[in-house]
Amino acid sequence: MTPEEFIHTETQPTDGQAGWIQSVRWNASEHRLDLLDQRLLPEEIRYLPLHTSRDVWEAIRHLAVRGAPAIGISAAFGVYLGIRDAGGDAAAVLEETRKQAEYLATSRPTAVNLFWALDRMKARADELASRQDLTPAGMKQALLEEALGIQAEDEETCRLIGEHALELFQDGMGVLTHCNAGGLATARYGTALAPIYLAQERGISLRVFADETRPVLQGARLTAFELQQAGVDVTLICDNMAGMVMSKGWVQAVIVGTDRVAANGDVANKIGTYSVAVLAKAHGIPVYVACPLSTIDLTTPTGDEIPIEERPDSEITEGFGKRTAPVGVKVFNPAFDVTPNEYVSAIITEKGIVYPPYNVNLAKLFDI
Amino acid sequence: MTPEEFIHTETQPTDGQAGWIQSVRWNASEHRLDLLDQRLLPEEIRYLPLHTSRDVWEAIRHLAVRGAPAIGISAAFGVYLGIRDAGGDAAAVLEETRKQAEYLATSRPTAVNLFWALDRMKARADELASRQDLTPAGMKQALLEEALGIQAEDEETCRLIGEHALELFQDGMGVLTHCNAGGLATARYGTALAPIYLAQERGISLRVFADETRPVLQGARLTAFELQQAGVDVTLICDNMAGMVMSKGWVQAVIVGTDRVAANGDVANKIGTYSVAVLAKAHGIPVYVACPLSTIDLTTPTGDEIPIEERPDSEITEGFGKRTAPVGVKVFNPAFDVTPNEYVSAIITEKGIVYPPYNVNLAKLFDI
Repeated sequence: MTPEEFIHTETQPTDGQAGWIQSVRWNASEHRLDLLDQRLLPEEIRYLPLHTSRDVWEAIRHLAVRGAPAIGISAAFGVYLGIRDAGGDAAAVLEETRKQAEYLATSRPTAVNLFWALDRMKARADELASRQDLTPAGMKQALLEEALGIQAEDEETCRLIGEHALELFQDGMGVLTHCNAGGLATARYGTALAPIYLAQERGISLRVFADETRPVLQGARLTAFELQQAGVDVTLICDNMAGMVMSKGWVQAVIVGTDRVAANGDVANKIGTYSVAVLAKAHGIPVYVACPLSTIDLTTPTGDEIPIEERPDSEITEGFGKRTAPVGVKVFNPAFDVTPNEYVSAIITEKGIVYPPYNVNLAKLFDI
Repeated sequence: MTPEEFIHTETQPTDGQAGWIQSVRWNASEHRLDLLDQRLLPEEIRYLPLHTSRDVWEAIRHLAVRGAPAIGISAAFGVYLGIRDAGGDAAAVLEETRKQAEYLATSRPTAVNLFWALDRMKARADELASRQDLTPAGMKQALLEEALGIQAEDEETCRLIGEHALELFQDGMGVLTHCNAGGLATARYGTALAPIYLAQERGISLRVFADETRPVLQGARLTAFELQQAGVDVTLICDNMAGMVMSKGWVQAVIVGTDRVAANGDVANKIGTYSVAVLAKAHGIPVYVACPLSTIDLTTPTGDEIPIEERPDSEITEGFGKRTAPVGVKVFNPAFDVTPNEYVSAIITEKGIVYPPYNVNLAKLFDI
């Protein structure tokens, strides 16, 4: 029994707009930021033309852009849009850069990547203002290049993760992923999806199973969407089908992203990752976690110290407009779970693949 | 960490209509069948007043009633509604009974319980027509009593399943269930939910976790609903949260229904049951399967011989009314999966609890 016998393709075709969907796109000819409105996915691919830092603030605040790296990159461009028409000398541009960064920091108060990117823009402005050889216009141009640099570095980080991870995949393998750790959330490639895109570029054929990922359906709305757009062979399943798909021998590897890796290799990720990892272990399937070094938090000893956010009941009881559970029912809706290190076969970063024992080997990544 | 710290109750209260929700209700004073319209759950509790066999046919055909036993019971009452105004002698009533049964059999062509109930009504009519002491009116009354008898027997079967299963539960236990094998699908009590209702009647406190059961959400729409109505402590979770809930120590038993048990104890049930069973085993939690003897099929040697129905992609891609996956995406949507017997701790029937080895012990149930 092969997957082909079981898997349908819906008869309605795509609109033919295949390829790489870049979520944050600097439009040089129009001198504006074009931001993919992720709220409209998968039904509509529409870019918001952003001309001002206020436009960017609104887009971040109202979730048109999601994914920590993508938010940080957008905010960096937002700083530039906020200062490009500033008058005065270099000191005035520096002052305006600080004001704009402060303003953009209020768009999503808990987004670490956002603050990191804004701090970097401020630091760059500081450095530029202290130089004697730059006109205000040159300083503004250098700040635009800084934003472009942040984006390029993120793409390079993701590409390196993909390069390292690709060693673990062979042509013809089935790969299961959960939630969305893809290109939409980053400059390009994503983390968990990076090896899948690189495989696609190199003619290595992988068959991807995407868990829909209740309650918010990032797997259905985003992962299936971006892989399909790129021409990757992706099959959407409900979360509760992962075990059956594994039992049929269709999956040779699981790869997921993560929100935080503890010093001992425990991994916090979207709710359901733990179930997938237990199922994978029961079927002898390796579980890989892909992330940049910045996600590894050596100050968190184990997963027990990672706080688990709980989300509103309505995500489960009426997540898509229609009520699907009785009024007044008790609901448990954790946003994340923690997968203990014993279920994690390897952690893949831009600096290479890390194997257990994680409490020793993760720290080595940070040695100079 | 206790469940209380984590589980919300939505602020909106129920309408206070607590208690047992009977899905098929003979209305003696109005001389009609009142059928709970399960399509409207959980938002609305509305009974359809059915006066004719055609009304019943329509209700079965258009899924107002679901659950094999509930469909069979409804059809038996449908036969009675079809013959109660028949003219002529006992032979004419017999002839009309056969016609009505034939007609009602076309409402859901693959429902085994439906045919079983209709055959039983025909056999009863045969037997009654052969007696000399009955008026046509007496014969009709006896056929109504036959339908009521089918319903009463189903309730008794479920109650016995519950009685036996209850031996496996203790006060204070957490119980996880998947899909709906509850009272709505049967005359009363259900199969998997029967011990939970009996525990409730006897003041034994159980905490139930109901998987929402994608894609059709029977757990959210039906199980959470009927347990909540009965005042049982039920918490709704997404399917992918089962592993986390188990890892927290909140679950001491899993109990599910089944569509078919093979001779070796392999169990076909709603998609996701296999994942739950693997997760339970990994956490040292027993998995119980509750069903009437009629669900055990000794002519099916193993689960490999059980055909797995595949359902339309749209259940996954636009099941909530709104499209939640890209157009044209490949989808795998099996309605059921098979849980191998090694994951099944016990099978509970109206004749008692069966433990492994199932290939020996299931056959013993059928010994005279």
